[in-house]
Amino acid sequence: MTTLAVALATNAEAIELELDRMLPVADGSQARLHAAMRYATLGGGKRLRPFLVVASGALFDVPAAQARRVGAAVELVHSYSLVHDDLPAMDDALTRRGRPSCHRRFDDATAILAGDALQALAFEVLAEPATHPDPAIRCELVQGLAVAAGAAGMCGGQMIDLEAEQRRLTMEQVLELQRLKTGALIGYACEAGAILGAAPPDARKALRGYAADLGLAFQIQDDLLDVTGDAALTGKDLGRDEAAGKATVVALLGPEGARARLAELRASAYGHLRGIGGEAHLLREVFDFAISRLN
Amino acid sequence: MTTLAVALATNAEAIELELDRMLPVADGSQARLHAAMRYATLGGGKRLRPFLVVASGALFDVPAAQARRVGAAVELVHSYSLVHDDLPAMDDALTRRGRPSCHRRFDDATAILAGDALQALAFEVLAEPATHPDPAIRCELVQGLAVAAGAAGMCGGQMIDLEAEQRRLTMEQVLELQRLKTGALIGYACEAGAILGAAPPDARKALRGYAADLGLAFQIQDDLLDVTGDAALTGKDLGRDEAAGKATVVALLGPEGARARLAELRASAYGHLRGIGGEAHLLREVFDFAISRLN
Repeated sequence: MTTLAVALATNAEAIELELDRMLPVADGSQARLHAAMRYATLGGGKRLRPFLVVASGALFDVPAAQARRVGAAVELVHSYSLVHDDLPAMDDALTRRGRPSCHRRFDDATAILAGDALQALAFEVLAEPATHPDPAIRCELVQGLAVAAGAAGMCGGQMIDLEAEQRRLTMEQVLELQRLKTGALIGYACEAGAILGAAPPDARKALRGYAADLGLAFQIQDDLLDVTGDAALTGKDLGRDEAAGKATVVALLGPEGARARLAELRASAYGHLRGIGGEAHLLREVFDFAISRLN
Repeated sequence: MTTLAVALATNAEAIELELDRMLPVADGSQARLHAAMRYATLGGGKRLRPFLVVASGALFDVPAAQARRVGAAVELVHSYSLVHDDLPAMDDALTRRGRPSCHRRFDDATAILAGDALQALAFEVLAEPATHPDPAIRCELVQGLAVAAGAAGMCGGQMIDLEAEQRRLTMEQVLELQRLKTGALIGYACEAGAILGAAPPDARKALRGYAADLGLAFQIQDDLLDVTGDAALTGKDLGRDEAAGKATVVALLGPEGARARLAELRASAYGHLRGIGGEAHLLREVFDFAISRLN
């Protein structure tokens, strides 16, 4: 395994433990809700967003354990968004991470509630003193996640995505969709490391530039996998975007054009990182991983 | 109008303005999401929870404008919960506040997203410096709302409520359901005033006791209205609990027994307030309003 693969695997294991500690144990009258929250969050995923918090935090000497706690909060939001996106009223996805999607394993109502409770839990975790001794930093973390997750971020992107089934999007609109739907949370994950490390403004700006490139590249690779990937490797339904007539960068540029765009984004992302010293090699490797992964 | 009626109406108007300022204006590619968020939140409701923040804050000299901002955040969570509860997968309610429910006016997917984005907005508002100059207080507000809204609060209560359609609940289980589903957010609204006012521990404890009585009383009155109320006044579908075979205090004790319980709760709530000086008369009047209201 490469150094990055080892670091990703180690991180994924630590995040799993962190999430396991944060999530309520299935108990009492609302045990079904607890079980659905755990099902939706544990046992899978690359934990890329938490890794980004750790990797960007490492640039500013943030202890990995501290970054992982914030990373786990980001993962709670990411997991809730998958549960809601998979609902019949949304993308109607049958499988996720190689297993039945949450609403199929439980039911629609339980899946809606589990998503809602996961979102609340993410903010609870961030606001707790254990996240960082300085409450001003905790508030900044809460505010940033709320913006990234809300109408100006992830939810807004999903809204555009749903409407994209009914109308043809221009390239500009597709880019906005992806900037919000996937980009906002990935951008926050990178920014969170800088918030925890009280990074100087120019480093934050560079990191935001890197994150924007990464977010788009990550989404393009996702769309490529939807067209050319292997369902056994991705663990989810494939060919759904095309079937739904959804506008994606891949649909607009074709697979070759999309791959050329990935190369441009890589050059741009590397450029942003040049201004930052320290452990930036990890973020470069994450980028390369994001555009070469098979799941 | 009584003094309380005037105070409630004045407060409702101020909260409407506050929410209007907080909510995104319908614009851009995700305009439909913005419109659904506004539809779900503006133009209705007694704004009882925000009023509780103001009334409990007044006991500790919290400026009404400051309390209203926090109250509006609570109302965002309350509004999101109504949108999700009304979904076909949940209570399948056709009307709310005398208008089509959010998913009927828009569609299920938009309603799910609007609820999600409203929850994120509530935390964004609380974490912002405009809420209180002390970030430690803002973190306490975020943490408290997250607990009240999540698996140990509102979402947990809704889970028990959904399962109550399939099994007979004991009185103890019904009380737990209501303590979580309605009580947690009402309790937080009272507690938030104390957090903003840095109230001493014994005053907080008394306020928690009052809020627990109020939350249950409020729910019992809701259930009484579901059985004996006027749909034109309540603005929502009635008789739904009975039709769904849901266990409520009213179903278990009958309307007369439920009214006797309301009188006991009133005596208990008044008792809790005796220990607190200042403007406690407002909280007494809110209690009387909660158990005599017709909508």
